[in-house]
Amino acid sequence: MGQRLRLLYSGGKDSTLAALLLAEFYDVTLTTATFEITDDWMHARESARALEFNFDRIQLDRVVAEDAAERIRTDGFPRNGIQQVHQHALETIADTDVDAIADGTRRDDRVPTVSRAQAQSLEDRYGVDYIAPLSGFGRSAVDALVDRTLDVTAGPSEEITRADYEAELRALITEVHGPAAIADCFPAHEQTYVTGAQD
Amino acid sequence: MGQRLRLLYSGGKDSTLAALLLAEFYDVTLTTATFEITDDWMHARESARALEFNFDRIQLDRVVAEDAAERIRTDGFPRNGIQQVHQHALETIADTDVDAIADGTRRDDRVPTVSRAQAQSLEDRYGVDYIAPLSGFGRSAVDALVDRTLDVTAGPSEEITRADYEAELRALITEVHGPAAIADCFPAHEQTYVTGAQD
Repeated sequence: MGQRLRLLYSGGKDSTLAALLLAEFYDVTLTTATFEITDDWMHARESARALEFNFDRIQLDRVVAEDAAERIRTDGFPRNGIQQVHQHALETIADTDVDAIADGTRRDDRVPTVSRAQAQSLEDRYGVDYIAPLSGFGRSAVDALVDRTLDVTAGPSEEITRADYEAELRALITEVHGPAAIADCFPAHEQTYVTGAQD
Repeated sequence: MGQRLRLLYSGGKDSTLAALLLAEFYDVTLTTATFEITDDWMHARESARALEFNFDRIQLDRVVAEDAAERIRTDGFPRNGIQQVHQHALETIADTDVDAIADGTRRDDRVPTVSRAQAQSLEDRYGVDYIAPLSGFGRSAVDALVDRTLDVTAGPSEEITRADYEAELRALITEVHGPAAIADCFPAHEQTYVTGAQD
């Protein structure tokens, strides 16, 4: 027993559900990866505490954020930049003293994704198991599980503070290019974060 | 709470681990799909009872077994035939009164597999969620979990009685074409018979 696992944790419903699925089988530390551009990681810590999980934050390389922000500006959409950051975040937690790493990617996610080959490569390079506990669950199954197991607050992404990379990349782009640059490369969408487990 | 889920269950370690992962979130019935060509389903029932899960068996269409056996004979390898049977088994349990269906396929499995498009199609046609709880786990992670959570009996495939389709398809091919036909279409590691003790 007691394999140590770090799960990349945003405080959102997907990574929270991933945590609940793994909790019985691993010694889970919810780990929020942050460039420390914003303080959004603190919201993930609140969710982790409400759920009574171990929590840690891990600092990412600022250069990766700058590269990703430029990629997003050049592309005109966030997908590839967010994918780069996610890959870097997985490598960062894999390079700590753990047996396994995990994230909250779902079957239907378009970004970030981790292909079978990328998963194998991570495992080989870092000597860890990479686990995507939600990758066998579609959106409808995840929604049904969230309804039954979590208390969730939802709202437009501008108002909800969730500790994913997007918030930090938005902040960085705003800092460098001004707020108008955001509308050019981020679609408006809804985000959620978890405030606790149901009884 | 209480979404009803049927998990295709062979009594093997993968489908057992899938059951443990789902147990906290669904009202799970381990369901062994059988053509009733052999009695191997009874071993799955024993495992299910030992684990204190609900168990059921469900009868598959004999015509599907015959088609799959012929496909395996024609191909000279079992992959496509087993895939056909797995698809039929998923459709059969999806067509019962359940909210969700599941199987024990792993990330690294080559057969059976259920693509994202096949998963979505199953869900749309039958109005169920399809869940592959192990599809985000590689072989190494599954092995580590099995070591920590299950008591497993291992041995040559002829001695281990597991209720997967292969046993029944072998039996059917043997029945129709004689035992020699097995060697032509099942890979070497699966055709090592124990014929007796050395002198």
